[in-house]
Amino acid sequence: MVVELVSVGTELLLGNITNTNASYLAEKCAGLGLSLFYQTVVGDNVERLSQTLQTALSRADVVIMTGGLGPTTDDLTKETAAQVMGKNLLEDSRTVERIRGYMINRSATIPKNNWKQALVPEGAIILDNHNGTAPGIIIEDGNKSVILLPGPPNELIPMFSEQVVPYLKKMEPDIIYSKMVKIAGLGESKVAEEIDDLIQSQTNPTIAPYAKTSEVHLRITAKAPDEAKANEMILPLIDEIKHRFGTWVFTTEEEETLEDVVVRQLKERKFTITTAESCTGGLLTGKLVNVAGVSDVLKEGYITYSNEAKEKLLSVKHETLEMYGAVSEQTACEMAEGGCKAADAEVCVAITGIAGPGGGTSEKPVGLVYIACCVLDKVSVERYVFKGNREKVRENAVMKALDLVRRSVTE
Amino acid sequence: MVVELVSVGTELLLGNITNTNASYLAEKCAGLGLSLFYQTVVGDNVERLSQTLQTALSRADVVIMTGGLGPTTDDLTKETAAQVMGKNLLEDSRTVERIRGYMINRSATIPKNNWKQALVPEGAIILDNHNGTAPGIIIEDGNKSVILLPGPPNELIPMFSEQVVPYLKKMEPDIIYSKMVKIAGLGESKVAEEIDDLIQSQTNPTIAPYAKTSEVHLRITAKAPDEAKANEMILPLIDEIKHRFGTWVFTTEEEETLEDVVVRQLKERKFTITTAESCTGGLLTGKLVNVAGVSDVLKEGYITYSNEAKEKLLSVKHETLEMYGAVSEQTACEMAEGGCKAADAEVCVAITGIAGPGGGTSEKPVGLVYIACCVLDKVSVERYVFKGNREKVRENAVMKALDLVRRSVTE
Repeated sequence: MVVELVSVGTELLLGNITNTNASYLAEKCAGLGLSLFYQTVVGDNVERLSQTLQTALSRADVVIMTGGLGPTTDDLTKETAAQVMGKNLLEDSRTVERIRGYMINRSATIPKNNWKQALVPEGAIILDNHNGTAPGIIIEDGNKSVILLPGPPNELIPMFSEQVVPYLKKMEPDIIYSKMVKIAGLGESKVAEEIDDLIQSQTNPTIAPYAKTSEVHLRITAKAPDEAKANEMILPLIDEIKHRFGTWVFTTEEEETLEDVVVRQLKERKFTITTAESCTGGLLTGKLVNVAGVSDVLKEGYITYSNEAKEKLLSVKHETLEMYGAVSEQTACEMAEGGCKAADAEVCVAITGIAGPGGGTSEKPVGLVYIACCVLDKVSVERYVFKGNREKVRENAVMKALDLVRRSVTE
Repeated sequence: MVVELVSVGTELLLGNITNTNASYLAEKCAGLGLSLFYQTVVGDNVERLSQTLQTALSRADVVIMTGGLGPTTDDLTKETAAQVMGKNLLEDSRTVERIRGYMINRSATIPKNNWKQALVPEGAIILDNHNGTAPGIIIEDGNKSVILLPGPPNELIPMFSEQVVPYLKKMEPDIIYSKMVKIAGLGESKVAEEIDDLIQSQTNPTIAPYAKTSEVHLRITAKAPDEAKANEMILPLIDEIKHRFGTWVFTTEEEETLEDVVVRQLKERKFTITTAESCTGGLLTGKLVNVAGVSDVLKEGYITYSNEAKEKLLSVKHETLEMYGAVSEQTACEMAEGGCKAADAEVCVAITGIAGPGGGTSEKPVGLVYIACCVLDKVSVERYVFKGNREKVRENAVMKALDLVRRSVTE
């Protein structure tokens, strides 16, 4: 089955934003075994939109359009798609109620133009939007479908994965089934090298590597008549990959993140954790708090940006800071040990580094980060020099710190 | 003058990479006053490439194609473009020399297929590549131009800015100049409604609203012979918008974020700030630490996820937690006041809420968040019920908290 993407939005044509929706959808479609030959970006203009959709429909079975579903008069995607598919727009009472509920919960008065979002093409399938007001819409006509999705990624992604994926799966008889192997701590080229023979010999199942911040994800995909058969094809390959990478593999669950694994491990060992963050300033703890139910293992955390705070809250010795500096192995270790004591926790992870852009020296360059993890009085410490800007350095530090906790707690 | 972008590459169609070249080129073209109505992504396939280029040439004066200039047999962009433009390929001796020099400098042996890159369409303008082997190429025919650029951003960006920009400037006399007005605390529809008359009457300059988490950005764009003239057209409109939205406008600087504004204000007033985070678990402080130089105003922060931590670190009264609960106006206020005292800071912002998915009741639903800000003993507190998943609730809470600090510090 052939799918085509049409992204709508002047902000894409002006380069104000990067088209991450297109890469997200393209990756998902590839995972579903769908063929994708074209992606088009077009502005909020009826004539050009209409022509683009008609061209896409002439080449594909399913056209996915993103953006232009907002409440303003600039937003024309739904109106244009309905016209091209020859459908009238009618008010959808369920969407009216959902928008009303959404607005009331925010104690907001409902601007008049929001009701435009409750108009839907006759006979269309409505996809509820739990993170915004614009509903998603599927318009079917003969053997062609047009799927309209809201532009903001935090609305589009859950809607696509929860409501569109099941719809697309029904259209393709053979199922595409995939499993993920997630690896932390190794670079993409290293991972690719280790399994080059497996990648080269791939036909069904296939292996595709995706590089993430401090992680590499390997997607193993099989095409088969059913899930049991697909699993039978995939499992030996997963075993082989796990065998090659050992403890670098942190999960084979699609939805499980590194912070999920860390929280799960801590719960299993009945440990509590605390955090001592300098350059990351709360990002690491923020990541842990992503995990629902983290309150069983995390009670408090310390953001100690200044030297004084490191002394006051974590009992880092004044002499240590004087002699080795705030960004040093010694300070990182004392932060981790001090954190355990201050919070009466079994585990503390500490991060201290130079995120830049200023503050670097030839001896201690921008990007230098020490990460320490104390588990029941035993401290491990690691030194990194991360490349990239302030944000990138801090992101990398957070991921490496999570991985250090993972490895320290399983030991 | 109308430009169109065609990005070539299977890795884009599979979603393995995000099309950052398109956003880079689109932004640059907009800045040059060029109109861009379409961007297309297509794979390394002669027939589809050829058709896409022909369609683009029928709509635009200049077509910029990126990618597919590599040495492998998969790379077909140049061959296809030459064929569509009716040009033969000839060996370019200068490019032969450049590739030889490039390879010798890297002490690399030259793979045979690299010489394919020295073939160029007859009469073409050659753009030297100082960061790779594939040259850029401009093919002109009548009043149409096709510009071929290498796909890797580190080759494309310098080649475009140094060699293509001067070429395009010669073709378009007017410049495009834009300014941003950023508004916090109002939704997109509310903002659009307030300035609907301005948007409707737009021609030059134009106003385009963009929705961000808890922010709306308005881009005001003018087309004029020079920057001074453009500014003259834009400034009255900015004044009118500032007049209508008052203190909801937090900046008119393109690059300035809400956290930048908060840190700037704190510096101006010589205040230090601390944080007391419960459900956001460090994300707010992490946002503040985005700002380089935040160490002047932020020394430490407290992540108090448990009730015990709120009592221990922030001196929230046990009775308050018992009587009103952790997610209450009273607790939020005591957290903010306690934070100021604990850190000896002039300002403390506190967040306590129910991020979900569990923990909600009919009285205190998931999404309920109290945000308090204490400035020199004066406490303001706000109540929100955010929609969406755990991540969305926390993101919104962080942005509203930053905005509360902004408004509290300026008062």
